[in-house]
Amino acid sequence: MIKLFPTLRLTIFVALFCCFMIFPVRADEGMWLFDVPPTTQVKEKYGFELTPEWLQHVQQSSIRFARRGSASFVSSQGLIMTNHHVGARNLHELSTPENNLLENGFYAKTFDDELPCNGLEILVPVSSEDVTEKVNAAVMPEMSAEEAQKARNAVIATIEKEASDNVSGQGKLRYEVTTLYQGGAYRLYGYKIYNDIRLVWAPEQNIAVFGGDPDNYEYPRYCVDCSLFRAYENGKPAKIEHFLKWSTSGVKDGELVFVSGFPGRTERSYTREHLEFQRDVYFPWRLQKLYRREVIYSAFGNRSLENQRRIADDLGGVQNYRKRAIGQLQGLRTPSLWKNLPQTKPAKDSPEEKILNACLAAFNARYLAYDLFELGEAFNCQTFKIARMLVRLAYETEKPNSVRLKEYRDGNLESLKQALFADTPIYEDVEIQKLTDSLNHVHDVYGGSWSNWVPVLDFDLSPKEYATELILHSKVRDIAERKRIAEGGIKAVKYSSDPMIQLALRLEPIAKNYREAYENEVEAPITAAYAELAKRRFEKLGTSVYPDATFTLRLSYGAVKGYKEDDGTDVAPITTIAGMFERAEKQKFKEPFDPPKSWKDGKEKLNPNTAFNLVTTNDIIGGNSGSPLINTKGEVVGLAFDGNIYSLSNNFIYTETQSRCVSVHADVIVEALRKIYGADRIADELGK
Amino acid sequence: MIKLFPTLRLTIFVALFCCFMIFPVRADEGMWLFDVPPTTQVKEKYGFELTPEWLQHVQQSSIRFARRGSASFVSSQGLIMTNHHVGARNLHELSTPENNLLENGFYAKTFDDELPCNGLEILVPVSSEDVTEKVNAAVMPEMSAEEAQKARNAVIATIEKEASDNVSGQGKLRYEVTTLYQGGAYRLYGYKIYNDIRLVWAPEQNIAVFGGDPDNYEYPRYCVDCSLFRAYENGKPAKIEHFLKWSTSGVKDGELVFVSGFPGRTERSYTREHLEFQRDVYFPWRLQKLYRREVIYSAFGNRSLENQRRIADDLGGVQNYRKRAIGQLQGLRTPSLWKNLPQTKPAKDSPEEKILNACLAAFNARYLAYDLFELGEAFNCQTFKIARMLVRLAYETEKPNSVRLKEYRDGNLESLKQALFADTPIYEDVEIQKLTDSLNHVHDVYGGSWSNWVPVLDFDLSPKEYATELILHSKVRDIAERKRIAEGGIKAVKYSSDPMIQLALRLEPIAKNYREAYENEVEAPITAAYAELAKRRFEKLGTSVYPDATFTLRLSYGAVKGYKEDDGTDVAPITTIAGMFERAEKQKFKEPFDPPKSWKDGKEKLNPNTAFNLVTTNDIIGGNSGSPLINTKGEVVGLAFDGNIYSLSNNFIYTETQSRCVSVHADVIVEALRKIYGADRIADELGK
Repeated sequence: MIKLFPTLRLTIFVALFCCFMIFPVRADEGMWLFDVPPTTQVKEKYGFELTPEWLQHVQQSSIRFARRGSASFVSSQGLIMTNHHVGARNLHELSTPENNLLENGFYAKTFDDELPCNGLEILVPVSSEDVTEKVNAAVMPEMSAEEAQKARNAVIATIEKEASDNVSGQGKLRYEVTTLYQGGAYRLYGYKIYNDIRLVWAPEQNIAVFGGDPDNYEYPRYCVDCSLFRAYENGKPAKIEHFLKWSTSGVKDGELVFVSGFPGRTERSYTREHLEFQRDVYFPWRLQKLYRREVIYSAFGNRSLENQRRIADDLGGVQNYRKRAIGQLQGLRTPSLWKNLPQTKPAKDSPEEKILNACLAAFNARYLAYDLFELGEAFNCQTFKIARMLVRLAYETEKPNSVRLKEYRDGNLESLKQALFADTPIYEDVEIQKLTDSLNHVHDVYGGSWSNWVPVLDFDLSPKEYATELILHSKVRDIAERKRIAEGGIKAVKYSSDPMIQLALRLEPIAKNYREAYENEVEAPITAAYAELAKRRFEKLGTSVYPDATFTLRLSYGAVKGYKEDDGTDVAPITTIAGMFERAEKQKFKEPFDPPKSWKDGKEKLNPNTAFNLVTTNDIIGGNSGSPLINTKGEVVGLAFDGNIYSLSNNFIYTETQSRCVSVHADVIVEALRKIYGADRIADELGK
Repeated sequence: MIKLFPTLRLTIFVALFCCFMIFPVRADEGMWLFDVPPTTQVKEKYGFELTPEWLQHVQQSSIRFARRGSASFVSSQGLIMTNHHVGARNLHELSTPENNLLENGFYAKTFDDELPCNGLEILVPVSSEDVTEKVNAAVMPEMSAEEAQKARNAVIATIEKEASDNVSGQGKLRYEVTTLYQGGAYRLYGYKIYNDIRLVWAPEQNIAVFGGDPDNYEYPRYCVDCSLFRAYENGKPAKIEHFLKWSTSGVKDGELVFVSGFPGRTERSYTREHLEFQRDVYFPWRLQKLYRREVIYSAFGNRSLENQRRIADDLGGVQNYRKRAIGQLQGLRTPSLWKNLPQTKPAKDSPEEKILNACLAAFNARYLAYDLFELGEAFNCQTFKIARMLVRLAYETEKPNSVRLKEYRDGNLESLKQALFADTPIYEDVEIQKLTDSLNHVHDVYGGSWSNWVPVLDFDLSPKEYATELILHSKVRDIAERKRIAEGGIKAVKYSSDPMIQLALRLEPIAKNYREAYENEVEAPITAAYAELAKRRFEKLGTSVYPDATFTLRLSYGAVKGYKEDDGTDVAPITTIAGMFERAEKQKFKEPFDPPKSWKDGKEKLNPNTAFNLVTTNDIIGGNSGSPLINTKGEVVGLAFDGNIYSLSNNFIYTETQSRCVSVHADVIVEALRKIYGADRIADELGK
């Protein structure tokens, strides 16, 4: 499934820049701003006119669902549609030991049964204003780069505050200035906030993610990856002016459809050399780590059902990243995708050359050590993460706010402490397994000379013996102990006899050095070089092209369309309920191909020809999960939840040949609500 | 499971030399020759006297089972006991579409029902003679190394022929001269051959390898990894003088036990620097390849049950190698195991330095390319293997025998053709998957510059597109086509339009160059350096120590003994039938923890306290599979079938602390024969 920001820690080498794309716009490509829409392109290719009214209506029906994904209003009474996997965290939080809502699903028979989701917030983009001039006016020519950045930040804060002050009293509007085109443009977005959100309906996980990891990023597909929530205001269902109607006529092959949502991040401005670096160095390296981890976790899980349960989340995460990385690398290794990239060698001292040099030179010299010791890949377990946080919390909070590591600045402390004191289960055996594996990884990287590189470690023990020692003797898995140390500050940390805290402490100067070197010698020069490139291009092209994704609202257009697999197999665009049961039968109903009991019992009631999932040529990326798929009348015809394997290179390059957006068809949602879940109340409400 | 010679192709870097060990003999260490037995050691530690009669009786009860493993006679009527996994190939060959003997097991109710195994041959060591002087006498001081080797080969052939001529008429004795101590000694072994071998009994695979890959190399364990055959002579059960009695009194914790069998290969003479190379370079590299492959194969298998079936053998092989490599590396990364190795830097121009330099210098410069293009890792699929064989068969057989690649010399042609024309199923989708994966591996190794390295490949296609193209357009998966080309010789190969044959043809000069460079610049100098070391040591120590394993008969002594896991868990030495059912229940009888129906139905009849598997400190290695575990009275108390994870470093270094041999207990075999399989006929015969 397309999750947003899978790995925020891998900054520069995976994804750092949000500039605009440099390739000529091809058919159906683009994540367009609503105020600079692809009107001409759509008109020319599909003969449909995007009117301001159509755009405004769709924009205001669109929702940013927490920081996780996209959603939309689908009734006048505040009904919200998003993906099951986007709402999964809330299902988890609402579960009790007796009733696991992820496993069992949920349906509220009446308004009163709808379950409030504490802390859940949704944002509806109600306005957008170009503030480029205002921002740029604050920057004087004589300013240094650093001064200019400060001035920009200051004026942005002022713009946001003034906008908020103007609506004070209402209290539920939030304004945010977003940088587009890597500084080429600035937009002030106004969002209406709803924070009384309640769960209305969710199917069982076994049908929401039918096919699990094996079918992830694949097609044909059969997932009801959908859940419904409702926005409340003043204790009552919110009255919504802009919501999407519901299509009852389905979609035809070739039909024009739109996706309106919040794509998270793309890197379509990467230079040829940067992409080559990704293809030849970064992804192979990253995949090696993922392969190793997946095998170690699987083997641990296979030893017993209890092991399987304990490692499931870690394993699922690794599998999703692995599949995504393979897909991205497959894209990068498809020569036809490169044909529009410049072939010339970058000029001496050009930004392109600087990027290339920074990537290549930095990788072995800087990045590997940064990855191991600052990002913590050398000690990949919860126990280390907690110990590290305790150490840093003690030392950083002693410093003035402005000079702290940014995660430890006042604004971030609350969420950091929430993570630090969270009561999530940590299993000793899983911890030993993970730490053994990552210490072995350190050995792999440094070989026999590792004692020179990692003087803080114990060399008289094997990785397994050392990991066992560290985990079994550390007490930070006990929350009370964590709190005691956090309250005790530097003293408590310094005089702790906990071996993991002591390790984290010894590691601190080394790790911080690696971080500083990486940030100064890799991140900064690459950022500067891309800013230079972006400036040049924006001066030439302006907003005639779409900016890279920035988790702001975008519109993508495309058509319902099948494709050909590499081996020549034709893939039809729309699957059916009958197809799902066939797949389950062929797999002898073994997990993850075992639909829930409600579906097996209810099979006879279902119309087997009901459309289940469909693929379209829309240009999407992680963050788009939960976006409505809309026809030209502005009606919901589906719910985007994934891309196929070819779409994974959308990160860098969009191609219409095989890349597809995968959606839940509107019909299967209604069919399931009525016939499986007895939820006529909600089915009747959809689109009204 | 401990399979013999898992990977003959990885010669020098894994395992090449069969010299003697250099470490002081520790408790229970050693794979001893029957004519230089560990009499003193056993006497001192266990107070038991190994008499010549005891030794001769055990020796002549021991069997080399084909080229696959060990076995023993367990009745006067030729009953043979070995592992289920050693006899599995025969079970496979005897299966019909209606009756899969691996799945269903087999029991012959009468002699007449016993199933002849075509082509199966067993060897019983009946004599052994020291011929060192005879061999050395043929070598004159003035001879060059090459001439000396020729002279040795010639005299060995003469010795073998003369010995065979002396017994002509009997027709069933075979003589083989084996090199021991890397040329320090030569033994002439006489084997009695039986080639009318029939299957008597085998349990279902689900109990033979209960726990499958997850429990492989682990303990506690519950496997009836046993099958019974019978030797016939002149159409009647063979009359056997030397066979093992059967113990009915079990074994006690701490009791002295012996393993008599044919350990395949150890590398206990490796230098410190060579072991460091293995630990820091070779194994991490090898594991990366295995991890990648395991994930790719698993992911393919998980897509459907049919995929799972198609990839099962490939995946199982990779998992076994991966687990073994992890165990070996874990041993190499345990600092306590290194404490007896010399710490000094090798002297300039010493053999130790030459070995180190050859390993390190060769790895990137020679081995990686050799591995990819000559060993075929770059094109890891059946289609390529067949195409390569067809190309080489055509060109090599045109040459005089003596200058051919050795696999294509006359003596090897028959088995080569058997492999080439074997009617084993080859699946297009599996082939595409495997080839895509290995082409990606080539990309990973060579990155952007791969077109310089691999000029014979097509660079306009992605690995997946190229693999698809090659596989779908090649016709060599058709046996008739293979035969047509093989008969057509060079012409047929040269003018073939088959893209895979053309690829193999273009690759030929490149691959052969890499092979030659590797053999001359890596293999030869390392072999020479080890021969020098071996000579020095043999002059000093002679036969007072045991030689490295050479797939000749050896005796290992040890005791029934539990151990401590790294996390402090105590592991008891003997498991029970009740334990097996508990494990199955905990795993909800999911594969591979689902005992066969016969066991589930028969549970009530079984004595739950019957001993199932046991661990002992015996020093064993692949090839020992199927060896009897014998008490001091010479009675069978068990059947060795595996080592635990710590035993995997036995390859390099034996340690008694945690390394264990795992055996099927004699009691569970009898209990199962009587109560599950109704095989009283056989249970009564055991040991009589």
